[in-house]
Amino acid sequence: MALGVAYDGAQWQGWQTQPSKITVQDTLEAALTRFLARPVAVICAGRTDTGVHALGQVVHLETPAERRLESWVRGVNALLPDSVAVQWASLVAGDFHARFSAQSRTYFYIVRNTRVRSPLTQSRVGWVYHPLDLLRMRQAAGRLVGEHDFSCFRSSQCQAASPIRTLHMLQIEQRGEFFIFTFKANAFLHHMVRNLMGALLYIGQGRQSPEWIDLLLAQKDRRLAAPTFAPDGLYLAHVEYPGRFELPNLDLPQVLAAHLGW
Amino acid sequence: MALGVAYDGAQWQGWQTQPSKITVQDTLEAALTRFLARPVAVICAGRTDTGVHALGQVVHLETPAERRLESWVRGVNALLPDSVAVQWASLVAGDFHARFSAQSRTYFYIVRNTRVRSPLTQSRVGWVYHPLDLLRMRQAAGRLVGEHDFSCFRSSQCQAASPIRTLHMLQIEQRGEFFIFTFKANAFLHHMVRNLMGALLYIGQGRQSPEWIDLLLAQKDRRLAAPTFAPDGLYLAHVEYPGRFELPNLDLPQVLAAHLGW
Repeated sequence: MALGVAYDGAQWQGWQTQPSKITVQDTLEAALTRFLARPVAVICAGRTDTGVHALGQVVHLETPAERRLESWVRGVNALLPDSVAVQWASLVAGDFHARFSAQSRTYFYIVRNTRVRSPLTQSRVGWVYHPLDLLRMRQAAGRLVGEHDFSCFRSSQCQAASPIRTLHMLQIEQRGEFFIFTFKANAFLHHMVRNLMGALLYIGQGRQSPEWIDLLLAQKDRRLAAPTFAPDGLYLAHVEYPGRFELPNLDLPQVLAAHLGW
Repeated sequence: MALGVAYDGAQWQGWQTQPSKITVQDTLEAALTRFLARPVAVICAGRTDTGVHALGQVVHLETPAERRLESWVRGVNALLPDSVAVQWASLVAGDFHARFSAQSRTYFYIVRNTRVRSPLTQSRVGWVYHPLDLLRMRQAAGRLVGEHDFSCFRSSQCQAASPIRTLHMLQIEQRGEFFIFTFKANAFLHHMVRNLMGALLYIGQGRQSPEWIDLLLAQKDRRLAAPTFAPDGLYLAHVEYPGRFELPNLDLPQVLAAHLGW
């Protein structure tokens, strides 16, 4: 069984189970355990950090239980707090694995660029005070797309075997005072999106040039890059799987529109 | 001095001061008292209930202090929690009164109409499960615009002397799965917008006809109308004053776009 899950990350200490139990995984497993009346463990596509949101997290679990797909969604949601909700349920082939079957992950990062902060976007949208230059950030984005050693954008706690990743897309769109960044890659290193955001915002504010990206990629040294940006505006938007698994496949603008009205 | 104030109402027990002190007024007065280093009391344009948000609340206060307008915004915001922020400050004539000088108030109510709830809009957008019919709700809205006795949409705790109000505008717009309701009136009775929302949603779901509005207005009996809808999606969007006070005057689409990205 595969489930699509959305959550407000501001309420949780990240995805992955902790002794505190204040995590999305602990909360979802507790609801599923009640729903199925037996212990349930789930595996997710991407372990999000504290404060990071999800619109399209995907998990799988093994269960002999047979329920209508609609019951999975409504029944589990009735047992979850307001800040977590199952979006869809789908029966999948036995070799499906939420993490290892994934072909790509897509994240949105939303930033509000205004002089004065808004209480209505706090914790769900990043805030940048200094004016951002869209063109400069797009020039920097063009230098990041492709296969690179992303060591300079990797947290010191990253446990990945290799720092090489392929960034398929880095799109930046402006809507009034908001900027929407879309990152799509085969996989991401720990803190990679937030570290990329730090660098893009430095460049957008004129503190560094777009060419600085080339230097960072070449030097492979995290200490040379910009600070990790806040998790507030970061959303795990979509995880892509081979078509044979037949999972729901909203396109990205639909995901943004469905959850945020954009 | 007049201030424009925005807040996330989900964090507060409404606007008006309470012994608990967990209100927007208490919080704002505490920040202003620290900023000016003397006791400060404010008067607001519209006392919002628990859970109701504001994008354009207006308050006034009397102060002999002379500070740059920019300092009022940044200095007070540095003393406020994330869920409240001053948006602008303006010097006003001595006869300005945030409540009595106001010519009209405008509220937005935002509803998400989907089968499955979203954690990312919880507490900031209302949620309706059953499909809503835009045309039916617009027909009902047309019957509500104008001067009426709104007794059937008035809370039993309402302290207003008269139940007569003039609803200048009730506009309903659909954007994908979201509906945006805009209510503009000279003033509103207690719970009036949430009670109007209850009736409009009954009609939108097909539980009542648009003509039901005429009956409710004629009967003047709160018990005949629909239940009060949740405060989650309700925003005090704008308060209008005579031009001579020269307050910042964003138009409504700008207010929505600036805070919510729409």
